[in-house]
Amino acid sequence: MDRLEALRKLLPGKVETSQAERRRHGRDEGYPEEGEVLAVVYPEGVEDVRKALLWAREHQVAVIPFGAGTSLEGALLPLGEAISLDLSRMNRLLEVRPQDFLCVVEPGLTRKALNEALKGTGLFFPVDPGADASLGGMAATNASGTTTVRYGGMRQNVLALQVVLANGEVLELGRGVRKTSAGYDLKDLFIGSEGTLGVITRLTLRLHPLPEHVHTLRVFFPGVEEAAEASYRVMATGLPVARLELLDELALKALNQHLGAGFPERPALFLEFHASTREALEAESALALELMREAGALEVEAAKREEERKRQWEARHQAYWALVHLFPGHRFVITDTAVPLSRLPEAVRYAQALLREMGLTGNVLGHVGDGNFHTLVPVLPEEYPKAEAFAEKLVKKALELGGTCTAEHGVGLRKRKYLPLEHGPALDWMRHLKALFDPQGLLNPGKVL
Amino acid sequence: MDRLEALRKLLPGKVETSQAERRRHGRDEGYPEEGEVLAVVYPEGVEDVRKALLWAREHQVAVIPFGAGTSLEGALLPLGEAISLDLSRMNRLLEVRPQDFLCVVEPGLTRKALNEALKGTGLFFPVDPGADASLGGMAATNASGTTTVRYGGMRQNVLALQVVLANGEVLELGRGVRKTSAGYDLKDLFIGSEGTLGVITRLTLRLHPLPEHVHTLRVFFPGVEEAAEASYRVMATGLPVARLELLDELALKALNQHLGAGFPERPALFLEFHASTREALEAESALALELMREAGALEVEAAKREEERKRQWEARHQAYWALVHLFPGHRFVITDTAVPLSRLPEAVRYAQALLREMGLTGNVLGHVGDGNFHTLVPVLPEEYPKAEAFAEKLVKKALELGGTCTAEHGVGLRKRKYLPLEHGPALDWMRHLKALFDPQGLLNPGKVL
Ligand SMILES: Cc1cc2nc3c(=O)[nH]c(=O)nc-3n(C[C@H](O)[C@H](O)[C@H](O)COP(=O)(O)OP(=O)(O)OC[C@H]3O[C@@H](n4cnc5c(N)ncnc54)[C@H](O)[C@@H]3O)c2cc1C
Ligand SMILES: Cc1cc2nc3c(=O)[nH]c(=O)nc-3n(C[C@H](O)[C@H](O)[C@H](O)COP(=O)(O)OP(=O)(O)OC[C@H]3O[C@@H](n4cnc5c(N)ncnc54)[C@H](O)[C@@H]3O)c2cc1C
Repeated sequence: MDRLEALRKLLPGKVETSQAERRRHGRDEGYPEEGEVLAVVYPEGVEDVRKALLWAREHQVAVIPFGAGTSLEGALLPLGEAISLDLSRMNRLLEVRPQDFLCVVEPGLTRKALNEALKGTGLFFPVDPGADASLGGMAATNASGTTTVRYGGMRQNVLALQVVLANGEVLELGRGVRKTSAGYDLKDLFIGSEGTLGVITRLTLRLHPLPEHVHTLRVFFPGVEEAAEASYRVMATGLPVARLELLDELALKALNQHLGAGFPERPALFLEFHASTREALEAESALALELMREAGALEVEAAKREEERKRQWEARHQAYWALVHLFPGHRFVITDTAVPLSRLPEAVRYAQALLREMGLTGNVLGHVGDGNFHTLVPVLPEEYPKAEAFAEKLVKKALELGGTCTAEHGVGLRKRKYLPLEHGPALDWMRHLKALFDPQGLLNPGKVL
Repeated sequence: MDRLEALRKLLPGKVETSQAERRRHGRDEGYPEEGEVLAVVYPEGVEDVRKALLWAREHQVAVIPFGAGTSLEGALLPLGEAISLDLSRMNRLLEVRPQDFLCVVEPGLTRKALNEALKGTGLFFPVDPGADASLGGMAATNASGTTTVRYGGMRQNVLALQVVLANGEVLELGRGVRKTSAGYDLKDLFIGSEGTLGVITRLTLRLHPLPEHVHTLRVFFPGVEEAAEASYRVMATGLPVARLELLDELALKALNQHLGAGFPERPALFLEFHASTREALEAESALALELMREAGALEVEAAKREEERKRQWEARHQAYWALVHLFPGHRFVITDTAVPLSRLPEAVRYAQALLREMGLTGNVLGHVGDGNFHTLVPVLPEEYPKAEAFAEKLVKKALELGGTCTAEHGVGLRKRKYLPLEHGPALDWMRHLKALFDPQGLLNPGKVL
């Protein structure tokens, strides 16, 4: 019996080998290369995950966990023979405990489906990457989003994990409490490990009360630098901003064309304030507005109604796709640096000047309240190396400024080359950890390290 | 040349062997047993730390890092031959970067000295255990305090660490940015590792803007349960509470005797709100007050002036010492459980009933906004086992409720026995990590695991 037949027998009805499936699972949303896995396994519970891992060990075949496939850095590309472990059938909301501000989910549940299911509880899960990613994939990349400036990213909102190791062992990491000092923090080791240390099979997530009062703004500036400066000033007051996003003129132009949004095509900050009382909300947003006016704000639009607020943030989440539509036939290099807050204006200025200097088009947008911005650079295939060269210079600049090569998208394949510069000798110890948890190198090999 | 002489030669002027020093470093503030180290080394820089560790390796002598010695769980007690590595001479504030909301410190700097030095910057470091602990020790125990409910504990406020491993290697872990997904999170592995994985020699800390407006309250209740219930209701609204502490009648009685504080001797919540505007502050505290009245609040005292606010929080921080004075000649068993928020009233009720049932005196106080409370149980030496039995029952109850055996004090020696119950098979992997980073078992052996 050949090994795939053995796999089918082990997991009947849960193994797909059509070429369409094998190709769909050999790529992600942002990396230029595509591959093909041997087979796709759809586990329906932790026992299926164990079986697949034990099979992989027996046959020495690599395993690549697959959430929603929306990642951007090549983490899903098979580098040799590999099966994909697609967790989308493990998508149940197992438990909601509103009084404890937490819920327990399977890893394949997506962030939107979770928030849909939470309606009526008065609670929400805040982490919102642009795509409708799976919660397991989000934990595996340490994702964050527009509300991270207020509510934290995955690391702050995952209280506990169940993981299956390469040897089939099932571990429970962390507890459903707000604080613990009971031993080594293994939970955070698995968050951001991109499927290279184990498979996440359950998550305990922290939920937050829906804000009673919300105020949403769009503020437009003469240049990206002024917008970055204004963002910095707002952060410097300690105002409890819930969202603080930068979009440059190109991003807004793309949104206008793609969605007919009708935004002024000028660098903008999209902001939101959350408060428990109307008075708090009004006082806080008034102060923020004053600070932004001092920093050069030209025009302010308030999204007064729930509908309009929703449209604004959906537009923000569409920024990537809008650009894709504006540049058909192009590939995209996406950077994801973060720098210490005060260096944000400098980093943004550097990126814009470098784009011009290299004759590239590209937009600048991102979660600037966290010092994190992206450039999306559309290029024709033959120009791809130039865009990569741009990305490399920008990363080096960010590291020079004390920043990181990736704030939220993860390392995948694309950013491996930057880790020696970012981590120095600590990188060896990451390798030792990998060897400890996955001595045969079967879990998403060649990624991250 | 004997080994201690070799050590003195290696680190001239930095080795102490008087009995007073050796004893002072063989104990902590809360564990009943005391020991004696071989010698105390006072490194003045990372190179000294390396030298001491390499000496220890050569002579196979254990090394116990020592911060301010205020921990409570036996983590400083030598179990065999050991030297103490006292970091108090490495207490410089190396860099403050107000625009980046961060600073870089040596591990021996204490939290109070740091905040003193930050005066005039408009920023503060929020984590405030009751004692004036060292920042290295606080990271090593993953400490938290009264403001953790709003600003997070050490894990959330340490951005980067420099550590020296048992083999003398120096690693830089993490970056001075708000978010990163660049590889495995080693920084968080060292936070909470209680000196068993490496020696922390430098910390990059996140700072927060001092609140523009502060409102401080003391609210009194007919019983501890009502207070716990009120605390839960306030948390459930998502109000941005900055401090939310429970003190029972015994704690207040002790404070009145010790400090002449004149507090009503009834179960109380001590609260604080921080806001950027006066309007926000007033609206938020009014709402909180309404909720607490509904939950049974009897009496409210507002601390109007800076002076009074300071006194209130200093009193809170004195709660332990006040009790020590109230019970001369007694030993103290201190518990440190946290439970999911909604289980707090139940856990508190359980603790109070159990104390009564076992014929023990004890108070209940703690950071209830995080679901974390302590019981301080004064006993005469011969009753110590009874108090330990109480602690064991309470921990088991907390674990049953989904909680943790230690929210912030750490494991030390005292809580090792609970880790199998709390972590199951994950505990073995903690041991593997220990063996990886410290294969000869020289760093604070016998602690945590
Ligand atoms: C338009 C667009 C906007 C985006 N915006 C953001 C953003 O704002 N912030 C942000 O952080 N990201 C953003 N991303 C990137 C992406 O959405 C995130 O990286 C997301 O977390 C990936 O989740 P996924 O479920 O799609 O994971 P996948 O892409 O399926 O997998 C990602 C990695 O996680 C591993 N993995 C997946 N599931 C598991 C599991 N259960 N156990 C172990 N490992 C697993 C995979 O092996 C892989 O290494 C965006 C992407 C797009 C296309
Ligand atoms: C009255 C009182 C109130 C308290 N209240 C709180 C509270 O509210 N919250 C709270 O969290 N704790 C509290 N504690 C406990 C204590 O203050 C904390 O555990 C504190 O973090 C210990 O810091 P330290 O500098 O005294 O460390 P030490 O007691 O010196 O050491 C503690 C542990 O850390 C290790 N260590 C110290 N420095 C380093 C270093 N540089 N590198 C590696 N390992 C190191 C030691 O080996 C030991 O294992 C309280 C204690 C007292 C006495």
